[in-house]
Amino acid sequence: MREPRIITLLSDFGLKDVYVGVMKGIIATINPDAHLIDLTHQINPQDIVGGRFSLMNAYPHFPKSTVHLAVVDPGVGSKRRGVAIQVAGGYLVGPDNGLFSGILSFFPPLIAVSLTNKQYWYKENPSYTFHGRDIFAAVAAHLSQGIPIQILGDVIDPESLLRLSIPDLEINPEGIKGSIQYIDYFGNLITNIPQSALTSKNWTIKVGELIISPDETYSNVPLGELVAVVGSQGWVEIAVNGGSAQSKLGLGVGDSILMLRRTQRKT
Amino acid sequence: MREPRIITLLSDFGLKDVYVGVMKGIIATINPDAHLIDLTHQINPQDIVGGRFSLMNAYPHFPKSTVHLAVVDPGVGSKRRGVAIQVAGGYLVGPDNGLFSGILSFFPPLIAVSLTNKQYWYKENPSYTFHGRDIFAAVAAHLSQGIPIQILGDVIDPESLLRLSIPDLEINPEGIKGSIQYIDYFGNLITNIPQSALTSKNWTIKVGELIISPDETYSNVPLGELVAVVGSQGWVEIAVNGGSAQSKLGLGVGDSILMLRRTQRKT
Amino acid sequence: MREPRIITLLSDFGLKDVYVGVMKGIIATINPDAHLIDLTHQINPQDIVGGRFSLMNAYPHFPKSTVHLAVVDPGVGSKRRGVAIQVAGGYLVGPDNGLFSGILSFFPPLIAVSLTNKQYWYKENPSYTFHGRDIFAAVAAHLSQGIPIQILGDVIDPESLLRLSIPDLEINPEGIKGSIQYIDYFGNLITNIPQSALTSKNWTIKVGELIISPDETYSNVPLGELVAVVGSQGWVEIAVNGGSAQSKLGLGVGDSILMLRRTQRKT
Repeated sequence: MREPRIITLLSDFGLKDVYVGVMKGIIATINPDAHLIDLTHQINPQDIVGGRFSLMNAYPHFPKSTVHLAVVDPGVGSKRRGVAIQVAGGYLVGPDNGLFSGILSFFPPLIAVSLTNKQYWYKENPSYTFHGRDIFAAVAAHLSQGIPIQILGDVIDPESLLRLSIPDLEINPEGIKGSIQYIDYFGNLITNIPQSALTSKNWTIKVGELIISPDETYSNVPLGELVAVVGSQGWVEIAVNGGSAQSKLGLGVGDSILMLRRTQRKT
Repeated sequence: MREPRIITLLSDFGLKDVYVGVMKGIIATINPDAHLIDLTHQINPQDIVGGRFSLMNAYPHFPKSTVHLAVVDPGVGSKRRGVAIQVAGGYLVGPDNGLFSGILSFFPPLIAVSLTNKQYWYKENPSYTFHGRDIFAAVAAHLSQGIPIQILGDVIDPESLLRLSIPDLEINPEGIKGSIQYIDYFGNLITNIPQSALTSKNWTIKVGELIISPDETYSNVPLGELVAVVGSQGWVEIAVNGGSAQSKLGLGVGDSILMLRRTQRKT
Repeated sequence: MREPRIITLLSDFGLKDVYVGVMKGIIATINPDAHLIDLTHQINPQDIVGGRFSLMNAYPHFPKSTVHLAVVDPGVGSKRRGVAIQVAGGYLVGPDNGLFSGILSFFPPLIAVSLTNKQYWYKENPSYTFHGRDIFAAVAAHLSQGIPIQILGDVIDPESLLRLSIPDLEINPEGIKGSIQYIDYFGNLITNIPQSALTSKNWTIKVGELIISPDETYSNVPLGELVAVVGSQGWVEIAVNGGSAQSKLGLGVGDSILMLRRTQRKT
């Protein structure tokens, strides 16, 4: 059976310039049968944490052997490595700066390679500012054609891959202290508290002095009201029915929130 | 002959998050040969009327048997139905909230199905907030592979599909009272007066005390000037050559306008 | 061997409306095997100079026989011609308004045709405002299927194609007077001074009273600092590490800059 030949693309390049289109031209030149799917190109400029979150959430929904090409690369032109990583069900290509560490926390790296074999680059003398074009796009295209990952360069210890340390959850008797890890397009505030941390349905979210009650879905509360839900990506999030929780609460990534366990009241 | 296997996507998800990419991953897993074409993901959040307008205008330009997947879904998680609809030349998949009623006013539904067969869902226990991923994307992918629509759930009376009532035109002896139904990226104000309502070339648009004269195209009037044209989608629209009619007039969706018939002057 | 069947799309249509999706529907109806790649649809409205720059930079990275469909078309509906142009390695389709003149300055036109053969249009009576849909998309699709370009209309003298005159560089003993020709999504100020004009590594950029030193890459200077680099597209550009040079300097397209040659100091 024909393998799927999907390459996803994620970057902070935006959609105004032709940078993304150029990467696609290079890929299509190498592998005309590649199926290109954009994850997003609107990661905030140089926001590795946001890129890490987005990749982690998208990864499980793609078929096996998909190649994920990701370029949020503030260190381009410096000594940071370019890498290709094989994980269960897919390949990752991009800078070794923590961008993939969300995926790697769920899917451990099987093989990791430093991209030193110039034969698979687009330009033997890459620019100092656009390795997405000069190295990563070409490498992803070659991988999507089924070449062995080891041929792309020096095999490295997967333990040496850079991991981003995300603020840990602080578990207290009364609840969990967490923080906001991502704010989506709708202004939903996505926390770092996973669904699995909710041991019962008796919980609330405390933000400053405000207590926000949980519900199953936005539309169960009146328009304009705050609600805490377990979002579609499996994290506790704060939302406003028909509005933006970000605008309403004025919170940002990294701000603290509390999940309070409610004790059963005996009446 | 090979059938076209196009799936179009329309939503209010924006392009910042990976929501759209995830839907594409699910589709490509089910049908690797699907050809995915984005209509837009920048429908204003929860703006069913804008989504309805955009779908209606895009629909006629796609090949037969295209599947149109549309998710503007403020009622997600509530009791609103998910539906698949067969119309002449295509299939529609999404929430039953009026989003498709523009298409249906031109292309009557042939078969309508409530999406109750979980075998064709992505998740048997869908999230409360993202049926685009958990139900609609998978259903669209299966339809694009040629499965019969009836297998997707309970066949329902097409008359029961929710229709949005758009403000009707009010036809007077002196002209037609209409309103603005959409404002495009360029700031063109698109009215709900169709080209077919223009019985002669002798007409003007009245907005407040302002009279706007018609012309065949923007560039026939000086830069910065207002002009009324029959737009490419077949509606009377108000435009500014090289500028934005929205900014110039400060009007919004729903605001009233008048089309005045000019009587032939005898001199 | 199968020819690549890529059609790139560039426009100022934005992504809010379905205009781009509609062009893709028409292309897919004519040639279901076309591989569609967006360059950008966020050229500033009617900015032919920005479109020209973007096309010129993207063009070299696409495989031979790619069809480049570009629609930035302030003169739509007027007498300006629609054209198809064959160049080494590709085809260009769009309005004859200078949009292609950047590509043509590097890749001279081999054959140019005025699009007068209505048989290859989408609508025999095109709208006055959307030739992208009614003429250009269909023509690009037919070209991607391998029809001879001459069949599309009247062969015209390639010398008659409209060229945009970009402000020339002014070369003085002390350096080169140039200007900013494009500002990208990151706020990098891209000048019209090509890498080939740098005869040594001893140069600086002067903007007003400010002297900006060159470096190989953004990340070699402290966060927030200005730096001049040779950008990935081969032009001298002014950047800020981790920030926007546009915001920092308040400059726009067309503003003057000086490249100063530094004489070797003898100490």
